[in-house]
Amino acid sequence: MFTEEILPELNNRWKAIQKEMAKKGADACLIAGNVNLFYVADRVYSGYCYLPVKGAPCFFVKRPVALKGENVYYVRKPEQIAEILLRKGMALPHTLMLELDELPYNEIVRLQSVFIPEQTLNATATLRKVRSEKSAYETALLRHSGQLHAACYAEVPRLYRPGMTDIDFSIEIERLFRKKGALGHIRVFGQSMEIFMGSVIAGDNAINPSPYDFALGGGGLHNSLPVGVNGTIPEPGTTIMVDMGGTFTGYISDMTRVFSIGKVAPLAYEAHQTALEIQSDIEANAKPGIAACDLYNAAIEKVKKRNLLPYFMGYNQQAGFIGHGLGIELNESPVLAPRSKDVLKAGHTFALEPKFVIPGTGAVGIENTFVVNENGIEKLTVLNEEIVEL
Amino acid sequence: MFTEEILPELNNRWKAIQKEMAKKGADACLIAGNVNLFYVADRVYSGYCYLPVKGAPCFFVKRPVALKGENVYYVRKPEQIAEILLRKGMALPHTLMLELDELPYNEIVRLQSVFIPEQTLNATATLRKVRSEKSAYETALLRHSGQLHAACYAEVPRLYRPGMTDIDFSIEIERLFRKKGALGHIRVFGQSMEIFMGSVIAGDNAINPSPYDFALGGGGLHNSLPVGVNGTIPEPGTTIMVDMGGTFTGYISDMTRVFSIGKVAPLAYEAHQTALEIQSDIEANAKPGIAACDLYNAAIEKVKKRNLLPYFMGYNQQAGFIGHGLGIELNESPVLAPRSKDVLKAGHTFALEPKFVIPGTGAVGIENTFVVNENGIEKLTVLNEEIVEL
Repeated sequence: MFTEEILPELNNRWKAIQKEMAKKGADACLIAGNVNLFYVADRVYSGYCYLPVKGAPCFFVKRPVALKGENVYYVRKPEQIAEILLRKGMALPHTLMLELDELPYNEIVRLQSVFIPEQTLNATATLRKVRSEKSAYETALLRHSGQLHAACYAEVPRLYRPGMTDIDFSIEIERLFRKKGALGHIRVFGQSMEIFMGSVIAGDNAINPSPYDFALGGGGLHNSLPVGVNGTIPEPGTTIMVDMGGTFTGYISDMTRVFSIGKVAPLAYEAHQTALEIQSDIEANAKPGIAACDLYNAAIEKVKKRNLLPYFMGYNQQAGFIGHGLGIELNESPVLAPRSKDVLKAGHTFALEPKFVIPGTGAVGIENTFVVNENGIEKLTVLNEEIVEL
Repeated sequence: MFTEEILPELNNRWKAIQKEMAKKGADACLIAGNVNLFYVADRVYSGYCYLPVKGAPCFFVKRPVALKGENVYYVRKPEQIAEILLRKGMALPHTLMLELDELPYNEIVRLQSVFIPEQTLNATATLRKVRSEKSAYETALLRHSGQLHAACYAEVPRLYRPGMTDIDFSIEIERLFRKKGALGHIRVFGQSMEIFMGSVIAGDNAINPSPYDFALGGGGLHNSLPVGVNGTIPEPGTTIMVDMGGTFTGYISDMTRVFSIGKVAPLAYEAHQTALEIQSDIEANAKPGIAACDLYNAAIEKVKKRNLLPYFMGYNQQAGFIGHGLGIELNESPVLAPRSKDVLKAGHTFALEPKFVIPGTGAVGIENTFVVNENGIEKLTVLNEEIVEL
């Protein structure tokens, strides 16, 4: 099921979840979503993890065959879980946590009919809170992802050929990421958020709004996936923003760099420098105990003073955040937004992405992945941050 | 919101859903998932489509900005939908259809609290039934996808270099698909099914079971996405099965071809020919009115007679179907499985994929996408079906 080496790490995760469960009065948590299964078992499998508020979890597996380990049981359907627990002499839970923001309605109803709990609590919020505080082990995976991510971006300029479309440029970047080990599939919280590998946004395509709650849109190539590249051939005086997901290690890093065809308008450079200053301000001020909304509000103040508000985080459609936690999913806690209640803690990891869209030029700005440590924050995606001329 | 040209097509879709709604006694259907929104609006957007049992649908949009059209309303939250309907003089539904197998539990609960219906019915089953019967317009999109899919596979042999890993081979195939217009993102029904672009399975990696309910597995590169390529360097006497998703047109074609390094074992050729015969049998017999389970059972009979059952649809772990409907999602109705209740209808589209895993050699077999027409079935992914030596 999992290796001996990972057991202490998993033990800590189970205990952290159990601590939150005890606070909420939950007797057990039944996990069925891939993201949370990967968190509690270090692997994605088809089945369930049953974590009682005290003691070791049980792993109920439908697929793949032949997983072995303590407390691993094969089942065909969730009804068997209750039978097995009763046979083990474990009481069924009165108060049960289920992933209410993630699992489909009918799946939750079926699980409730198996356990008939007096009360069902939302495991999603609890697990997202616990998952937001990364261990050293997890931070190391994200650091490694950030290094590979930066190494890819360092090679991006050599992939560009004048006259190529944004889609052809994106395809070469995607191939580079895959060659460096990217798994490709991006896990996003929220059933309506879909994206393929990331975005390459050239020139005024940055103005095109998308239906997704990503920082920037792009019109996309098709009504069925209206985000990102739209066939633009980059022209002199415009930018290309590269914002790919770092899917190298099961923990997703996020990083954006801006390239340009020749020089761009002074306003674009000014906005880009403002983004870098916002990042510097946050690097100077962010540490455990700081409210995420304060970081957002300070950024907005700076943007207002520079008269850049119409361009900030989009032009026709503006994103309501400048940073987002990340890990197994691209969007975790904390969120750097005006009404965020998140307070930074050591172990939080987040992407900071102050960006501007300048009509006639394109998108500028920066995105890096950071980890919050005891004294401040540390950048995990280190690479030149100026606009690079192609 | 959508073009004039697509309106007759959408009108037919709305009417087909309304017909099923009337049968079930539903007053309205509220759609919020991307797949079904794309079906009823010809575009993915963030928001809702409210379809009453009679009359035109209303489109409630959160993002993107600036969509225009009849019955298009911008909302920030679902609570506004009820207000707008009441202002339009429309009665709120007593019996409401919601996507109970697709939307998260808490989202359904919220929508129920908006409308307070006396009864909630499952829109998922109804929409999947309606979506399974493709129009000429939809079949044309799938046909076009199948043509591009086949054109890609024709070029696969030139991408292979001796000594390359399965992952490097896969990366070149992925790039080829993207260059031909693949959008990349594969929509799969069921929250626990994840895959990146498709599978390239070399040699005994075909034996490795995955947690996903795909026809074949492969160990994958990482515990977080344990499916497909695993770093195998193809060796003489083994096969490479290429099974990529055809994500070209919003309607996903599915197609598998087998390549080999030199000649392979006689058992592998025998199994491959058996797969082709199963396909021929089904091409001869499948037509409207035929039960999907009968096609499956006839295939199993043939496999048993040839003593190939231990290898059929996997070795350590065997898939329980030989074909699956497809369209906007990779897995739709009908399903060709032993207990399937599906009966073929004109307009059904499905992938047929009889496959075998031969230890020491790898996977063999075939997969093509078919449409059911009035008299039989027609193959949409036409290309040489023998094992091609690389």
